[in-house]
Amino acid sequence: MPILVMKFGGTSVATPDRIRRAAKRVGREVANGYDVIVIVSAMAGETNKLVEYVEETGQFFDAREYDAVVSSGEQVTAGLMALTLQEMDIPARSWQGWQVPLKTTSAHASARIEDIPPANINTKFAEGMKVAVVAGFQGISPEGRITTLGRGGSDTTAVAFAAAFGAERCDIYTDVDGVYTTDPRIEDKARKLDRIAFEEMLELASLGAKVLQTRSVELAMRYKVKLRVLSSFGEMDDTAGTLVCDEEDIVESNVVAGVAYSRDEAKMTLISVADRPGIAAAIFGPLSEAGVNVDMIVQNISEEGRTDMTFSCPTDQVPRAEKAMQAAKDAGEINFHDLVADTDVAKVSVVGIGMRSHAGVAAQMFRALSAEGINIKVITTSEIKISVLIDRKYMELAVQALHDVFELEKAG
Amino acid sequence: MPILVMKFGGTSVATPDRIRRAAKRVGREVANGYDVIVIVSAMAGETNKLVEYVEETGQFFDAREYDAVVSSGEQVTAGLMALTLQEMDIPARSWQGWQVPLKTTSAHASARIEDIPPANINTKFAEGMKVAVVAGFQGISPEGRITTLGRGGSDTTAVAFAAAFGAERCDIYTDVDGVYTTDPRIEDKARKLDRIAFEEMLELASLGAKVLQTRSVELAMRYKVKLRVLSSFGEMDDTAGTLVCDEEDIVESNVVAGVAYSRDEAKMTLISVADRPGIAAAIFGPLSEAGVNVDMIVQNISEEGRTDMTFSCPTDQVPRAEKAMQAAKDAGEINFHDLVADTDVAKVSVVGIGMRSHAGVAAQMFRALSAEGINIKVITTSEIKISVLIDRKYMELAVQALHDVFELEKAG
Repeated sequence: MPILVMKFGGTSVATPDRIRRAAKRVGREVANGYDVIVIVSAMAGETNKLVEYVEETGQFFDAREYDAVVSSGEQVTAGLMALTLQEMDIPARSWQGWQVPLKTTSAHASARIEDIPPANINTKFAEGMKVAVVAGFQGISPEGRITTLGRGGSDTTAVAFAAAFGAERCDIYTDVDGVYTTDPRIEDKARKLDRIAFEEMLELASLGAKVLQTRSVELAMRYKVKLRVLSSFGEMDDTAGTLVCDEEDIVESNVVAGVAYSRDEAKMTLISVADRPGIAAAIFGPLSEAGVNVDMIVQNISEEGRTDMTFSCPTDQVPRAEKAMQAAKDAGEINFHDLVADTDVAKVSVVGIGMRSHAGVAAQMFRALSAEGINIKVITTSEIKISVLIDRKYMELAVQALHDVFELEKAG
Repeated sequence: MPILVMKFGGTSVATPDRIRRAAKRVGREVANGYDVIVIVSAMAGETNKLVEYVEETGQFFDAREYDAVVSSGEQVTAGLMALTLQEMDIPARSWQGWQVPLKTTSAHASARIEDIPPANINTKFAEGMKVAVVAGFQGISPEGRITTLGRGGSDTTAVAFAAAFGAERCDIYTDVDGVYTTDPRIEDKARKLDRIAFEEMLELASLGAKVLQTRSVELAMRYKVKLRVLSSFGEMDDTAGTLVCDEEDIVESNVVAGVAYSRDEAKMTLISVADRPGIAAAIFGPLSEAGVNVDMIVQNISEEGRTDMTFSCPTDQVPRAEKAMQAAKDAGEINFHDLVADTDVAKVSVVGIGMRSHAGVAAQMFRALSAEGINIKVITTSEIKISVLIDRKYMELAVQALHDVFELEKAG
């Protein structure tokens, strides 16, 4: 039998009634001839409640115990989903991470998947089981303790299962009906994409689009797992949602696939740094060691041996960055006049694999922003994306202007 | 290091604050020089919520999935208790049933403990861990699936650990401060017992006293585990609570240790049964097969080859008993005129190991009830208890009269 992986997020299993509705979708795929692996999240709100319990015990907690506590939410939904399927006369059973076993590293609270031996579940499929319901987000460490994969880990679990079992497709059921050209809350002309390439999805996910977790897209790209994002609340329809797939499976597309934004980026400027060979390493080495995820970097033209160095990082890492820079200065490793943090900025990006073969996208983007009177503070580009840092108050305007200029409301 | 087992029930771990209070009691015993095994229940209300979820999926559910779902409550408290202890600088870690492993039969939802190999936990004690926090009520089946021990299974878990680890004592922390001569809500002269014999506790537990689960007392008796019942809300005091122990550890005691009652018993009467050899087997065989727990049995004097047969069983098993009797009649196995169920009765019992050596307890009991005008419907006795079935409206009166006549307010 061909295998299908179906993943249901927290809002899709938030109540017993919603679990029933999700189970009907699973039943439909069983009727279509699939053996199905269902990956479930915890009921919406449940994981937050468990995390709060843990945080109430103290500021610094043992990640191994954190994992034992927070993994219980998925365990509950997995059992309830199996029971609901059985009630519909579909042979099903639940599997917790350690029962599969989904083997991970020992990095508790942010473990990485190492291996998913398919033997146990395949034996049950061979015996007539039609659905394996697996608790998402969790596995077992080499020491035999429960690990979790970090937030969004259920998407990653689903893709990893699809890869391990050679599934025909991995369907991610969520509360939105697909991937859009941009956030419809900001641009009402935003259009749902039928298909998007892995690379594009990866850029969009890491640039702030929240529909899929970055790690799950990376994994899908590496193992060529066809990923479909669709709503668990819409019609049951084989063409619903957005298919995230290999570039070559996309016949026609716009140069720009989508516009992403993020409010969580801060702009940091080191004023009057002594410019010398190796200065970049002296700055970004300590930042990296302090766990600061630096995104964009701009170095001004050097004057009289001194320069300004600007970089961006997530807003919540600003204190960490400041501490690391002050320490490097105190240690005499770098020398600067001041460190200025500007958290009142936003990052807006355009993404599209078509940019590889089309020149002029950057120029078109900068012109469109300029026409709206929006000043660009920092720019970074990759082969398939261009990101700019701008004043936060212009964010919505920028998204709308870029959606317009690249005509994203029209299918490619 | 001597080992102590401490078990905290659902009300004792109902909130993070109560978990902290329980952890302080654990810390005190660690300071006293013990290696401690803590058994925790789920937060009060949590298991009921999970059971409701399961029941919402359908009337007949897979007990294996039920177990996977409901065992999650203890998993959460075990992690939180370990974290709270760590915050108090006490080396602790949590263990789920399958991690210990606590091996059980495959009888899901009412599994029996088969083995608790102490090696894993003892290794950690040897490495300096001071507290092993174990999720109560659960284990692992030979098939590698999570099992639960049935309601009250956390008490049983605690006693089984005490036996497996040769613990000095097993302290059961609950919301009452010990075992009383009778329910203080009915008789305000009820007195807390300092000590009670296993046999007495066993009778009281099975006769309706809710302080300890019957199976846990049986187990404690078999393995000579000293059991202490005490409140997790009272003062920290080494002499608090009631010690359930071997008869020979009790120096002086009353003839009657306590008075128990139960409202959950129904009186069933088969009217005009054809009296012939083997008739009792023909009646009680089918009842037993139907899962009816028959307690008391009375057969009236036979007249003209017919008799009335009266028995008692838990109220919620009355429909099952009626169905079984009707089926036996339809199959021609028994013959009776009518089956009358009287659910408006109560069972009141006096229990005491002193009854073995003191005659006249029964006569004293019947006289006391008679003096209050209470009619006795059915009587059963064992070596250390006498139970009577009476009209439910006289239950409180009967308990008070018996408490008085045996002078239970005075220490023996």
